[in-house]
Amino acid sequence: MKVKEILEQVQNQKISVEKAQQLLEQPLDYATIDFDREKRTGISEVIYGEGKTARQIAGIIQNMLDHDCKTILATRISQEKRAYLDPLFPDFEYDELARTFFYHHNNIPHNIGKIAVVCAGTSDLPVAREAYITAKFLGNETILISDVGVAGIHRLFNRLDDIREASVVVVVAGMEGALASVVGGLTDKPVIACPTSVGYGANLDGLATLLAMLNSCASGIAVVNIDNGFGAGYMAHSINNLKGKKT
Amino acid sequence: MKVKEILEQVQNQKISVEKAQQLLEQPLDYATIDFDREKRTGISEVIYGEGKTARQIAGIIQNMLDHDCKTILATRISQEKRAYLDPLFPDFEYDELARTFFYHHNNIPHNIGKIAVVCAGTSDLPVAREAYITAKFLGNETILISDVGVAGIHRLFNRLDDIREASVVVVVAGMEGALASVVGGLTDKPVIACPTSVGYGANLDGLATLLAMLNSCASGIAVVNIDNGFGAGYMAHSINNLKGKKT
Amino acid sequence: MKVKEILEQVQNQKISVEKAQQLLEQPLDYATIDFDREKRTGISEVIYGEGKTARQIAGIIQNMLDHDCKTILATRISQEKRAYLDPLFPDFEYDELARTFFYHHNNIPHNIGKIAVVCAGTSDLPVAREAYITAKFLGNETILISDVGVAGIHRLFNRLDDIREASVVVVVAGMEGALASVVGGLTDKPVIACPTSVGYGANLDGLATLLAMLNSCASGIAVVNIDNGFGAGYMAHSINNLKGKKT
Amino acid sequence: MKVKEILEQVQNQKISVEKAQQLLEQPLDYATIDFDREKRTGISEVIYGEGKTARQIAGIIQNMLDHDCKTILATRISQEKRAYLDPLFPDFEYDELARTFFYHHNNIPHNIGKIAVVCAGTSDLPVAREAYITAKFLGNETILISDVGVAGIHRLFNRLDDIREASVVVVVAGMEGALASVVGGLTDKPVIACPTSVGYGANLDGLATLLAMLNSCASGIAVVNIDNGFGAGYMAHSINNLKGKKT
Amino acid sequence: MKVKEILEQVQNQKISVEKAQQLLEQPLDYATIDFDREKRTGISEVIYGEGKTARQIAGIIQNMLDHDCKTILATRISQEKRAYLDPLFPDFEYDELARTFFYHHNNIPHNIGKIAVVCAGTSDLPVAREAYITAKFLGNETILISDVGVAGIHRLFNRLDDIREASVVVVVAGMEGALASVVGGLTDKPVIACPTSVGYGANLDGLATLLAMLNSCASGIAVVNIDNGFGAGYMAHSINNLKGKKT
Amino acid sequence: MKVKEILEQVQNQKISVEKAQQLLEQPLDYATIDFDREKRTGISEVIYGEGKTARQIAGIIQNMLDHDCKTILATRISQEKRAYLDPLFPDFEYDELARTFFYHHNNIPHNIGKIAVVCAGTSDLPVAREAYITAKFLGNETILISDVGVAGIHRLFNRLDDIREASVVVVVAGMEGALASVVGGLTDKPVIACPTSVGYGANLDGLATLLAMLNSCASGIAVVNIDNGFGAGYMAHSINNLKGKKT
Amino acid sequence: MKVKEILEQVQNQKISVEKAQQLLEQPLDYATIDFDREKRTGISEVIYGEGKTARQIAGIIQNMLDHDCKTILATRISQEKRAYLDPLFPDFEYDELARTFFYHHNNIPHNIGKIAVVCAGTSDLPVAREAYITAKFLGNETILISDVGVAGIHRLFNRLDDIREASVVVVVAGMEGALASVVGGLTDKPVIACPTSVGYGANLDGLATLLAMLNSCASGIAVVNIDNGFGAGYMAHSINNLKGKKT
Amino acid sequence: MKVKEILEQVQNQKISVEKAQQLLEQPLDYATIDFDREKRTGISEVIYGEGKTARQIAGIIQNMLDHDCKTILATRISQEKRAYLDPLFPDFEYDELARTFFYHHNNIPHNIGKIAVVCAGTSDLPVAREAYITAKFLGNETILISDVGVAGIHRLFNRLDDIREASVVVVVAGMEGALASVVGGLTDKPVIACPTSVGYGANLDGLATLLAMLNSCASGIAVVNIDNGFGAGYMAHSINNLKGKKT
Repeated sequence: MKVKEILEQVQNQKISVEKAQQLLEQPLDYATIDFDREKRTGISEVIYGEGKTARQIAGIIQNMLDHDCKTILATRISQEKRAYLDPLFPDFEYDELARTFFYHHNNIPHNIGKIAVVCAGTSDLPVAREAYITAKFLGNETILISDVGVAGIHRLFNRLDDIREASVVVVVAGMEGALASVVGGLTDKPVIACPTSVGYGANLDGLATLLAMLNSCASGIAVVNIDNGFGAGYMAHSINNLKGKKT
Repeated sequence: MKVKEILEQVQNQKISVEKAQQLLEQPLDYATIDFDREKRTGISEVIYGEGKTARQIAGIIQNMLDHDCKTILATRISQEKRAYLDPLFPDFEYDELARTFFYHHNNIPHNIGKIAVVCAGTSDLPVAREAYITAKFLGNETILISDVGVAGIHRLFNRLDDIREASVVVVVAGMEGALASVVGGLTDKPVIACPTSVGYGANLDGLATLLAMLNSCASGIAVVNIDNGFGAGYMAHSINNLKGKKT
Repeated sequence: MKVKEILEQVQNQKISVEKAQQLLEQPLDYATIDFDREKRTGISEVIYGEGKTARQIAGIIQNMLDHDCKTILATRISQEKRAYLDPLFPDFEYDELARTFFYHHNNIPHNIGKIAVVCAGTSDLPVAREAYITAKFLGNETILISDVGVAGIHRLFNRLDDIREASVVVVVAGMEGALASVVGGLTDKPVIACPTSVGYGANLDGLATLLAMLNSCASGIAVVNIDNGFGAGYMAHSINNLKGKKT
Repeated sequence: MKVKEILEQVQNQKISVEKAQQLLEQPLDYATIDFDREKRTGISEVIYGEGKTARQIAGIIQNMLDHDCKTILATRISQEKRAYLDPLFPDFEYDELARTFFYHHNNIPHNIGKIAVVCAGTSDLPVAREAYITAKFLGNETILISDVGVAGIHRLFNRLDDIREASVVVVVAGMEGALASVVGGLTDKPVIACPTSVGYGANLDGLATLLAMLNSCASGIAVVNIDNGFGAGYMAHSINNLKGKKT
Repeated sequence: MKVKEILEQVQNQKISVEKAQQLLEQPLDYATIDFDREKRTGISEVIYGEGKTARQIAGIIQNMLDHDCKTILATRISQEKRAYLDPLFPDFEYDELARTFFYHHNNIPHNIGKIAVVCAGTSDLPVAREAYITAKFLGNETILISDVGVAGIHRLFNRLDDIREASVVVVVAGMEGALASVVGGLTDKPVIACPTSVGYGANLDGLATLLAMLNSCASGIAVVNIDNGFGAGYMAHSINNLKGKKT
Repeated sequence: MKVKEILEQVQNQKISVEKAQQLLEQPLDYATIDFDREKRTGISEVIYGEGKTARQIAGIIQNMLDHDCKTILATRISQEKRAYLDPLFPDFEYDELARTFFYHHNNIPHNIGKIAVVCAGTSDLPVAREAYITAKFLGNETILISDVGVAGIHRLFNRLDDIREASVVVVVAGMEGALASVVGGLTDKPVIACPTSVGYGANLDGLATLLAMLNSCASGIAVVNIDNGFGAGYMAHSINNLKGKKT
Repeated sequence: MKVKEILEQVQNQKISVEKAQQLLEQPLDYATIDFDREKRTGISEVIYGEGKTARQIAGIIQNMLDHDCKTILATRISQEKRAYLDPLFPDFEYDELARTFFYHHNNIPHNIGKIAVVCAGTSDLPVAREAYITAKFLGNETILISDVGVAGIHRLFNRLDDIREASVVVVVAGMEGALASVVGGLTDKPVIACPTSVGYGANLDGLATLLAMLNSCASGIAVVNIDNGFGAGYMAHSINNLKGKKT
Repeated sequence: MKVKEILEQVQNQKISVEKAQQLLEQPLDYATIDFDREKRTGISEVIYGEGKTARQIAGIIQNMLDHDCKTILATRISQEKRAYLDPLFPDFEYDELARTFFYHHNNIPHNIGKIAVVCAGTSDLPVAREAYITAKFLGNETILISDVGVAGIHRLFNRLDDIREASVVVVVAGMEGALASVVGGLTDKPVIACPTSVGYGANLDGLATLLAMLNSCASGIAVVNIDNGFGAGYMAHSINNLKGKKT
């Protein structure tokens, strides 16, 4: 029974105030969800799937649905967890590459500007796609430009018009992450750099890429955590948001 | 002799084309300045003073002036270098705390939104001020809110209205850098987190703060390099820029 | 045969002193247990299950029971090891989340003060629960407050009364660990901060959180090892212990 | 003029309300002091001297005096800063080894328990003394036991009675920091371990000591930042505080 | 056919010199074994099993047997590799805990002094046992003293006579590794410290222990690699060797 | 259908220009291959198999074959991926040790100089072999000298003539990587050092070896990433290439 | 007296064989110089000035001159050491930026190919110049292209012809070091990447740059130590050397 | 007045027992010296000068002299501290390179075996000399072989006889520290490896060398802390000691 229904039943005197209070106060003992958030910001809390059991995730999703959340995004959902969640929430989509599980009642881009997600190599795609799906989920027109690493820089120049059309650029790259600096030098829009853990040993699981991006010689670049495609997509949205909504 | 004067003298046939070419092609042997940048983006190249000698900096500034640059910003200018530069460029200002040396022919905020630079402690002020001066220099209305670290969180809440009024928030903090996450949870505007190297031994010259900020549990945060107030201010400007110019 | 029984048999002249000596001197060849500890401190040695085989753990437990230990706690007991131990020690409890296996002949809180375990996110729960179970096992009234991370700081303020009522506060958090500083700023009780290995790549398996907590700008905070819920619970107990016992 | 005097003058109609407001609202632009703290907790904010100029520190101290703070402690005050501060605040004491500058209107121990600061080697003394002075400043009976490192463990055993008499033990050590584990194994009181940056190259400026202490095999130990004698002393006080005040 | 047999057949003119040369020159293409070593030093090359396939290890062993090696030791032999090797070399022993596979034609201690391997906790036993087996294999009288970590230091004192009787002491410990310093302070014999990767997160897979041991405040301690029980045992032997052989 | 065939069909008017364009513009959505590269440099793009799915790799190979690539090399192909690829591309070879999957229409060495790949231990062979296969694939006469680590330095001296005959030497070693310095001191040819992740704990997955090689006291050494046999072989080729082609 | 003179005097029976032997055997007690090296390789040993006293350096130079060395290069010579050395060796040159002190009896380029040293920013110049001077000293035609960092990538494209003309390219860059990858993608010549310690805090004194360069996505790149301009120049020479000498 | 004199005066009834007790109980408040040590082990405590003030060091030395210590060694004594100590203790020697200040009443080698200190380069000499002086101070015949780094390996082979004659070998090296492995492979005596902080940036102040030495592929090597010449010399002595004393 959803919160709204409970309240209606109170109004209709179908259940006592005491009973209603009891129902509403049945919280999850492992999660304190900020239901108000969707009302305040248009986006409900995002569920970070790593380190939570499939059952906990299902519980949180159900709890959010019970409170009338209309947009739900869960990231880092492994194939195993997905197998558990899929039958429970048939209206949800799952993106295999990005490992996201999500539901949106009405996902039409409503922000004015565009977001470009630029990806260095095929191995970086899972993270890039997490950024892409997040940005789209949050209501932004988004394009994904893949495999334009700097080792063959003409590939990047071929896509420059697409990149320059965007309000915000997300650069997803592993190895030395040089793509962030090169893109940063070719546009005057804000660039969100997202390092990935792709590379040989001295990549140190993405730490080398992260440090490189933080040291970029180009201005107008800021960095999110390693493999944090969600964080990059969210930051890009929060910037693009400033340009206003389509009317 | 400035580039424009050289070209006028060519036009007026006061000097030969060969002579003009020779004058124009007298580059600095230690720096290749991108003079076109100011025309393209409204901002000329910024001079990073660290690791350059005072003479090299003076040479670059003079070279920029000779090419009619109207806005010049040099960062990381120590007191020693300033002593050398001041007499040469009397029109320039120097900010002691931020260690910046700059000149702006007409510095009126022209961007629409506001930038708030929020600073955790007094020891973080030099970096915060570098961010503040950079953002103002680039044409943004900017406020600096200092000493509102999370150990006494009511100090932050007292300034929440000012923070929420801004389009972009820069958070400058050392130690554990928790201020970034707390501010990030209290606003839906993009937050640029700038770690400083302030703290006891395990701060590792700002590395601990940097890592903490990259791991922020709040969404809508991206991070720049340690003590890189300039980078934070520039990124904030490049975001605020998206809202358009005052007419 | 238990030590006490052996000694009684000596007294009753059922076995010779030589035989008794022999029985008592049959030590484990892989562990030297400090049986005296329970007598001295009221708490017997705690078994750290990681890196020990299930058979070694069973041997140690049996050895402790043989020496009349009345309270036994084994931490880091995986599901596999539990499967081996459960049938051997049917009186023991197992906490799935905290991965602890324990027995207490009479577990009533006997310390005067209270301990509050405050946990940032659902993914941090296993560690928080290890702290919670440890503190309770050692005889303290303990509450567990979960999912009150700083990204939605009002959730924390809702529970502030509970936190302030405690004599000692354990804060369990991953990512940037800012919760420790915020709680530290809101209470004047000692805070034990326990970092977890929850987070994206640059969390470095909890190292980023650990460093952040060590750099806390709030006073009255000390830190234990990454994911060391047991250590946090034990330290909280040893502090709460100072307030004296219920009579 | 102090805040109280201002208010009296308003009461006595010596100055207008407007004038009083103006005087009271003259804040420091670089520091937001939490004057209320002393009233709430008995201890006013402590000034961390590192990274602040001598002038800023003097300004903060004056501001605190103006608001009737009765106990003021500034840490990390170099000889240079002290030379500036001494003539301005002749009532203050300076401890050369601990590099602290402080004033206390009436420093008699008022907490019931005792604190023992145990120090491994002579080179660790500056940090140990910062802990010692902090604990005493905050109203605790405190003893400092120096040069009892584990290489000559009988020196420690000679002092065991003193250590066991304390409610809380602070262990200050550099190099491998083994003293913390050994003391932790010999007492059942809470131990605050404070690593120092004393040692040969692989000490990594105290990082090796810090990590060792965090990995202590003894229970009931928690750790503060490298060379953070103040933090150790404060934490010890906040624990000792639980035992209650002398009447 | 063994080298000796080949040479006999040449002598007996059963095979031609050319054939013999061909047989002797059939080397392994993946390993260049130093067969001369056993003659020079009494010990043949030791096989490091990690990163070699079971087939490669078998090939090397066979090759050594073919060249009349009389003592063969292979370390880091997993259960899987052992399953492959056991049927091929039925005369070899396998130590499950130490994961060593070895053969010795006549393993009677021939060195004069004794070696003591002292082990902090049960979880450190696999490494300690690798040291113990290595030292015995190389001809030393060796004892293994386990679970005498510093958290209960009386356990160590109980075994002090055994330790002081040895010519060389190997200390195997994880976590903070304090045992090395304490033992180092209690004996004037050389101590070889061997860190293990046992501990919570900030142990960093043994790096914390390693650094701690390198920073020992006791003199007469040197350190080998993490979990390198073989290296510790070998070093202890090479020191004990100096005392001379039994006659 | 290959690009050439498509173009022939256009020429033969079997398909329309529009249809041809459509066929040619069907790119892979996950990879942007630089087909021009083989024409420019004689070597087509190399496929880095790590982090790509078997299906993506197959798609890229097919795409390259469709564009008439005559030499294809895919590295880091696990046994699982190979099982998928083998039936699809029966003309390809697979090297089990080096984990490379490759095809060459005509692989005769055409460069003048020789490359020597020198390998410290048997455990380093997989990486050494990746270097060896890469160098041969790119058209160089290459030899592989294995198991000549510095612990038995006479083994190296036995092979010195082979090493000195080469134009470029690749040294592949784990542990302390001393082989690079020793070889570097014995030849005046350029040495490419390739660290491997072979070793006990403090090897830090090859980081220790990498750092050691970068610090080599011998001149004429440069380093590639950990376990990057491909990179070492490629660099050696690009150097050997300077000597010119066989005619 | 030089070695040659000593030998002549022996031949002429001016001094006894015993006296000569004595003179020749007066070695430096702090340095064992490999005088044979110049004969073998054409280049005498290079003196690494860091960590040697000015007197030791002078002693080594004198010793080399006494043995008829005709080319002497000392690197890392601070202004202080130069002040001591200059009057002693008036024939030597000193390069202030590169901090090298050197003498060459006849420095005409004799290698066939060219070396290009490409430098990202003005702050990287000291290292780039060390590479440049080393390469020239060793007999190579060398050019230095400065300030062509990727933030303004057109500056690099303007100099592409010069770069492509070289046989070997040295790339010197700090910060994120992206220049190495971009250059590597634009040339098929071997690239030696030399990281510098230029950048904000997270540059970690060049470590971030070093790691980035090791992770370059471009092939044909190998890396030397941080700020090791000498090593880069030497490696470039040893490669260029393969092309042969001018006749 | 020395302890012995005090006791004699008590015996002679020149001073009262109370007075004597008072005199004997005047300890240093900053150091607890283990005077018994010299009696037990023949060597009094060594003073680590780093982090102690000159006055503290003087106090400790005087205190030791007052207790009849006959051998005193202080390490890490800077030129500044020496200037203070020299006039106070005219019988002491100072070694400028090793920075040691010491006194020995009768320093004749009394141990049977020899110690060889082998040093890679001139820049490593200060550390090597600290090891050399320490070993000699402790009563060992010691030789110092300098500048035999592996880049010119024949220099090492020239000195092999000297090295093989020693009972214990100390190897002091910076950079990649390969000398330890090479020496370890050429002798069957125990090798103590002492890394120095000599090298370019990625040496990380000796950490790279330390790690390399810990990873040595040669057996019979153990490692001491970075730049810890004293520790290496002491360990070598404690090993050599096993061979017995000259009679």
